[in-house]
Amino acid sequence: MTPASIPDLIRKKRDGEAHPRAELEALILGYTRGDVPDYQVSAWLMAVYLRGMTPQETADLTMVMAESGDLMDLGELPRTVDKHSTGGVGDKTSLILTPMLAALGLTVAKMSGRGLAHTGGTIDKLESIPGWTSELSEERFTSQARGIGLSLVGQSKDLAPADGKLYALRDVTATVDCLPLIASSIMSKKLASGAHTVVLDVKVGAGAFMRTLEDGRGLARAMVDIGTRAGRQVRAVLTDMDTPLGHMAGNSVEVIEALDTLRGHGPHDLTELCVALAVEALAAQGEDSAQAETRARATLRGGSALAKFRAFVAAQGGDPTYVDDPSRFDVAPGRADVPAPAAGYVQRIDALSVGRAVLALGGGRERKGEAIDHGVGVELLKKPGEAVTVGEAVMRVYHRGGRGLDAALALLAEGLSVGPDAPAPEALILDRVN
Amino acid sequence: MTPASIPDLIRKKRDGEAHPRAELEALILGYTRGDVPDYQVSAWLMAVYLRGMTPQETADLTMVMAESGDLMDLGELPRTVDKHSTGGVGDKTSLILTPMLAALGLTVAKMSGRGLAHTGGTIDKLESIPGWTSELSEERFTSQARGIGLSLVGQSKDLAPADGKLYALRDVTATVDCLPLIASSIMSKKLASGAHTVVLDVKVGAGAFMRTLEDGRGLARAMVDIGTRAGRQVRAVLTDMDTPLGHMAGNSVEVIEALDTLRGHGPHDLTELCVALAVEALAAQGEDSAQAETRARATLRGGSALAKFRAFVAAQGGDPTYVDDPSRFDVAPGRADVPAPAAGYVQRIDALSVGRAVLALGGGRERKGEAIDHGVGVELLKKPGEAVTVGEAVMRVYHRGGRGLDAALALLAEGLSVGPDAPAPEALILDRVN
Repeated sequence: MTPASIPDLIRKKRDGEAHPRAELEALILGYTRGDVPDYQVSAWLMAVYLRGMTPQETADLTMVMAESGDLMDLGELPRTVDKHSTGGVGDKTSLILTPMLAALGLTVAKMSGRGLAHTGGTIDKLESIPGWTSELSEERFTSQARGIGLSLVGQSKDLAPADGKLYALRDVTATVDCLPLIASSIMSKKLASGAHTVVLDVKVGAGAFMRTLEDGRGLARAMVDIGTRAGRQVRAVLTDMDTPLGHMAGNSVEVIEALDTLRGHGPHDLTELCVALAVEALAAQGEDSAQAETRARATLRGGSALAKFRAFVAAQGGDPTYVDDPSRFDVAPGRADVPAPAAGYVQRIDALSVGRAVLALGGGRERKGEAIDHGVGVELLKKPGEAVTVGEAVMRVYHRGGRGLDAALALLAEGLSVGPDAPAPEALILDRVN
Repeated sequence: MTPASIPDLIRKKRDGEAHPRAELEALILGYTRGDVPDYQVSAWLMAVYLRGMTPQETADLTMVMAESGDLMDLGELPRTVDKHSTGGVGDKTSLILTPMLAALGLTVAKMSGRGLAHTGGTIDKLESIPGWTSELSEERFTSQARGIGLSLVGQSKDLAPADGKLYALRDVTATVDCLPLIASSIMSKKLASGAHTVVLDVKVGAGAFMRTLEDGRGLARAMVDIGTRAGRQVRAVLTDMDTPLGHMAGNSVEVIEALDTLRGHGPHDLTELCVALAVEALAAQGEDSAQAETRARATLRGGSALAKFRAFVAAQGGDPTYVDDPSRFDVAPGRADVPAPAAGYVQRIDALSVGRAVLALGGGRERKGEAIDHGVGVELLKKPGEAVTVGEAVMRVYHRGGRGLDAALALLAEGLSVGPDAPAPEALILDRVN
């Protein structure tokens, strides 16, 4: 191929043509190195937004992005599995699922992120446990994964650096919500992280990035397709995110709920989602689904997942007595309840409102690097479908003397609706894609 | 209006919405000042390319661009008129038309450009006359226009600076050939130049930017619409640019041909085009077309246009004896002819090939600022439709000892076709838009 100029590549995408991999390398690796200026990449991103990409192009783009930096080599670890959620409110699934997978004989050597805006990050939640750290040497990361089947570090800046650079540019050029760009962004990091099996939890609804089931399905299909073309086993579950998952949203309070779930006493929706994701991970590796489900449930009932979690916390410097006695967690002492405005049934507790309320209380961050308060949070005393009397507490806020309390209460009241008739029950798991 | 963020403005255009003028001001004036970064503007330009702009948006964009720098105030000059050609090969129309307009009682106080690539610039051509300069003070520019009705300067960098910045960005982001952006680029400079009447010559064909009549009509309509919305009188003529205009392409040779035309002995196509453009200018100011045509022809037959041209040359420092005696021009002494490859009729002399041949000979520039050789050029001894015998000279090259001569001859031979049947005569003036 004669090397085409960058304006020629922009022109091709502008006119709806597909790029062969070498052209994507010229653009993306050139941009990552600093040879291709941002003003050309942003014009190209807008052309991608409006013209789309073929599945092969999207897969090629993802692989080029993955190969723009370090590639984790997990090759010597057995049955590696990674999990990704597109982000929700009250989503403490990783805290429960990853020790379940370790207890099931898989290896989770995972990079995770911090929270931003209304979605919490697994690392932020784990930092509620005194001493726990996400900073491990590469050697310790690997040896811990080999030893107990579970290790978790913060995402390296050398992992798919093209993604970080592209995302920052998309953020300021109105090119974020574009399916091939979203799918390649997520999957480039998963491919670079090295796990052979990847389970994706694609959230759909008011509190999620994908607002409709159709959009969610499109994203799930695109990501599964990318992984398959890259030779990985990828499965996706589409789950409802109109309502927060479980009863707790925050940091300490979510870890407490995760521990309840690991003891077999978790909320129904959260437990079922964790079991479903574990089943997908095992099925991706060839296990029979019915048998996989029995084994997955047993890790919660029998305590093996809790034991893995305790070992994991201790291995990364955390105080394991918090795992043994969740009452030790620092939960903010202030309490304020959100009452039902009428008698009837809870129709809706808007996940986005709950996420924003936690943010207003100081439990999340609006900008990268901001400190957060691990003790604040929101508890859903009732979930949609439950009956309430007028004035009965539907949600409880855990706060410290009013920081952002008024804003949080207003957000929660706005996100709550109570009506005379019991709403039709909504399924949590909406679809599966593999 | 709450001031929208730049990403919000990009999002609007991305989604096909129209910008009110205030949003275009935020984007374009912000970019010109350096407050809005190029990577946001290039994403917006691609969105404009793929989503288009309404006529009102295009007019607003043009006015914002015009107001990004100095606005010439020609308000005290009577019946001001400007002319613009979208660029062709052998197009010496301005040299003839502007003194015709001055002789007709209109005022031409015009900014003009230099040539780039295969199209020549009026200033380059006029610089074939020893002493002639395009550098006039603003005061002299205006007083000369008042005195003899014609003055011509180089385009100020303070004229519509947004256009220069946007054009440079479009050039490297595959967003050049976009109708509202082309139209606004041309018209922003015309509006800023201040003339009340503007006559546009939109070239269509192999040697022009607009390849088809449909594209040319679209551009003409867009430009007339912009001018009308800005309160100016604008008329456009669509003219053929498959074949070079007249017989000469170069600099000195084009001035010589222009002087022939001003004496009433010019080639038919060139003369007719100048008359047609003069009629449009007069008609735009309310004159009856038939009477306008009689008056326009009289300026050539009676010598009044030639007298204006002589006065104009002298006023700007040029040696008027060159006007009186065109044999004084420095024409390159070398001669090389392009023979007919067969007997028959000339079917086609490709304008682009002729333009590139002049460039190869050194008579044009590939990059801004390059010096050019005013003496080289190409003469069309025959035009399409004329009969030739095999080996008969169809074109003559004026060169200086072979600089680029082989390349020029190859280009000209490639652009020439001779066939057995006389081709259907093609109209020069294809359409009018007002």
